[in-house]
Amino acid sequence: MKLRPPSFLASTLALAVLAVAAGGAVAQQAPKPEVLIKSRQSAFQLVAFNSGRIKANLDGTYNKDEVVRAANTIAAIAGSGLGALFAPGTEAGKGWHDTTAKPELFKDLKKFAELGGNFNKEATELSKVAAGGDVGAVKEQYAKLSRTCKACHDDFKAKD
Amino acid sequence: MKLRPPSFLASTLALAVLAVAAGGAVAQQAPKPEVLIKSRQSAFQLVAFNSGRIKANLDGTYNKDEVVRAANTIAAIAGSGLGALFAPGTEAGKGWHDTTAKPELFKDLKKFAELGGNFNKEATELSKVAAGGDVGAVKEQYAKLSRTCKACHDDFKAKD
Repeated sequence: MKLRPPSFLASTLALAVLAVAAGGAVAQQAPKPEVLIKSRQSAFQLVAFNSGRIKANLDGTYNKDEVVRAANTIAAIAGSGLGALFAPGTEAGKGWHDTTAKPELFKDLKKFAELGGNFNKEATELSKVAAGGDVGAVKEQYAKLSRTCKACHDDFKAKD
Repeated sequence: MKLRPPSFLASTLALAVLAVAAGGAVAQQAPKPEVLIKSRQSAFQLVAFNSGRIKANLDGTYNKDEVVRAANTIAAIAGSGLGALFAPGTEAGKGWHDTTAKPELFKDLKKFAELGGNFNKEATELSKVAAGGDVGAVKEQYAKLSRTCKACHDDFKAKD
């Protein structure tokens, strides 16, 4: 779960070239746009859900183990190569529902990779801070992470 | 990402009692059934997607970093407290689509927790093995993990 901002963008291409690069006996197919859109919508649904769990702990009774697991899940998703889920061909279309990615995202992949890298960085940090168990520090880092979500949504996500 | 099978079931209750247990000034509400069902469907979509990434690497050109990230994502989701997403009130209903959880699941939470614990155990192990980079070992462990998916689907998942 190390920070690797460049891989965020590089992985955008990884799946797209999978079919070409495959050296094995079994022909590989790049996932269909619908699958990619479903998967990115799933990723952000899980991030939102686990973010809500952390917020509930910060606002109420704090359960360190619960927060650690939620933060680890967000960090793993943030570092999973989300860029690949925005591969060419997924600019429009339906996953679980119509995509809410703005066309601007696909026109500025460099900026998107930068914002994704910030998200990954702060999510990884939250996972470390959560393991430490200092509630004040978790609150502060959680706010930092939330700002990276908002920054990307402001630029690249249409209203639901 | 340690193995904690008991928490799989314990967390089933955690969210349900959140509103009651909340000691803070802000009243907490348990997530709505639709949100829980959406989140579990998202979790398994991401597991399936990342499982497909690992399989594509095993069948074709192997990229260690890609496999590590996919395996870490599966392990984090498996250890995130999936049991909580099957809280009372979610036996039927719609998330992204109608739930495919069978009624039997909610009648045998002990068995479900056991199968979930196996999934968590083998996913955590795959994440370790992937970091080691021995492709044969990854293949073997991936097969073990797949069997835990199937075991639970056989008992508790209706056909889509």
